[in-house]
Amino acid sequence: MPIALVGSLVDGRANFMTVGWLSRVNYQPPMLALSLNKAHHTPKGIIQNGSFSACFPNLAMEQITDYCGVVSGETTDKSKLFELFYGETKTAPMIADCPLNLECRLVQTVELPTNVLYIGEIVAAWSEERFLTDGKPDMRKIDPLLLTMPDNRYWGIGAQAGDAWKDGIIMKKRIEEGTDASV
Amino acid sequence: MPIALVGSLVDGRANFMTVGWLSRVNYQPPMLALSLNKAHHTPKGIIQNGSFSACFPNLAMEQITDYCGVVSGETTDKSKLFELFYGETKTAPMIADCPLNLECRLVQTVELPTNVLYIGEIVAAWSEERFLTDGKPDMRKIDPLLLTMPDNRYWGIGAQAGDAWKDGIIMKKRIEEGTDASV
Repeated sequence: MPIALVGSLVDGRANFMTVGWLSRVNYQPPMLALSLNKAHHTPKGIIQNGSFSACFPNLAMEQITDYCGVVSGETTDKSKLFELFYGETKTAPMIADCPLNLECRLVQTVELPTNVLYIGEIVAAWSEERFLTDGKPDMRKIDPLLLTMPDNRYWGIGAQAGDAWKDGIIMKKRIEEGTDASV
Repeated sequence: MPIALVGSLVDGRANFMTVGWLSRVNYQPPMLALSLNKAHHTPKGIIQNGSFSACFPNLAMEQITDYCGVVSGETTDKSKLFELFYGETKTAPMIADCPLNLECRLVQTVELPTNVLYIGEIVAAWSEERFLTDGKPDMRKIDPLLLTMPDNRYWGIGAQAGDAWKDGIIMKKRIEEGTDASV
């Protein structure tokens, strides 16, 4: 799973929590959903302001990212850990050091047994020229942090394994020509 | 994002589509959500049977995985691409070659502008001894396939970057002892 530091303003103070349960969920307009346990501090800020951020740290930020996941904003001030900036919503704190920050406006919540799903429209994406190639995010430059459970390990991305929407088309042509043994 | 082949029985025939927009969404009972565009063939089977699978391919399955993403089950029979098996639900086709298969019972759908979110309870997880360490899934052995957009590249996992719920605790102790310069 991709790892994000989810930012919100709780009682006016910037707070960040480490989240691995998140995914894009709508194509147009672009939306992102994240699932948080009901006991967390962050949801308070998301509801107060109707906004949140998903800030994607790189590998160099591994320890501080894990730290944000082990201490609660209820007892620890995490607002001074990072250089912050704000965008359109004015209430979704974002992290200057993160290569990619998605700023979201809350559009819907879905109540589940132990968690709540927060669905946000991505109103802006913040990055820097040095993380882009031809104007688009380049994952090799972004160097995102990944998490697997239940072995609880962080990883970087490894070797490129192929090209999406290309390698399958090559196989489709082979099947159509009758030169693929898969089917 | 992690890549899964989502399986369903559409009009009684096993079908698989490639999905990157999925995430765990509830802790207890364990639930998984996936977001599908409304035009797809797979949702028909999910609704017909109230079940689906999330089958996680490894790097060696990259091309066939991409193929399942570029051809629709409406025009192409994908039921013979893999050796299949069924579990508790009897209606969620799973793939013998995938190192990890999650079998899900549909519990809720959430309508979004262009997509629908299918939330399923994970009723069983299928793997093999050779993919486990101490009885738990070992991501190094599973060798999962990752996708990034919009650069549309598949990746493997790379070097381990740290230990979750451990590295942050080390930092917390340093901060409490006053030996950390981060705050």
